[in-house]
Amino acid sequence: MRQHKHPKIEEIDLIDIMYALSDPTRVEIVMTLAGKGRAMTCGELLIDRPKSSMSHHFKILRGAGLVETLIKGTEHINSLRLKELEERFPGVMKAVLKAFRAGMADG
Amino acid sequence: MRQHKHPKIEEIDLIDIMYALSDPTRVEIVMTLAGKGRAMTCGELLIDRPKSSMSHHFKILRGAGLVETLIKGTEHINSLRLKELEERFPGVMKAVLKAFRAGMADG
Repeated sequence: MRQHKHPKIEEIDLIDIMYALSDPTRVEIVMTLAGKGRAMTCGELLIDRPKSSMSHHFKILRGAGLVETLIKGTEHINSLRLKELEERFPGVMKAVLKAFRAGMADG
Repeated sequence: MRQHKHPKIEEIDLIDIMYALSDPTRVEIVMTLAGKGRAMTCGELLIDRPKSSMSHHFKILRGAGLVETLIKGTEHINSLRLKELEERFPGVMKAVLKAFRAGMADG
């Protein structure tokens, strides 16, 4: 089955991660995946945006190295690459996710 | 003397910080200020970009709450708001600066 391309962990640029996290929809996707703590299909994410917009955001999230999407049949199964990111940029995603979570609790 | 406007620390949005850090010139400014560990005038920064481009980048850095610029006479004195940012988003800037520093050492 044809799969999406993902950057290798050593190719990931922190600037691209910052850009990926500079949009509310993408942050919502990342926070939903982080909150569930497991891989999710696009349908499960229940984020109310047009499909084309979601495709665009997932493309940026994959390109930045934040999300991995595996295609199984008709399903796209998405997960955060947190373990690899922690190795490459220690503490970054942990602190960022925590801060976004705190912000969501405030709002 | 007329001064720049800066957001209050409680108005700062992490999404804007992420966006501010998604550009190589802005990261260079932030890393230079972090490396020196003190306020610096625009002249001292020695970043070789057109003045208009630097103004644009500083505007984004100020708007995001990353940088404070004080005007003294003809000088613009810039500093990172690290202490305030640490209170608002614990650990975020520390991890991000460390990761960017490691990346600069690699490259």
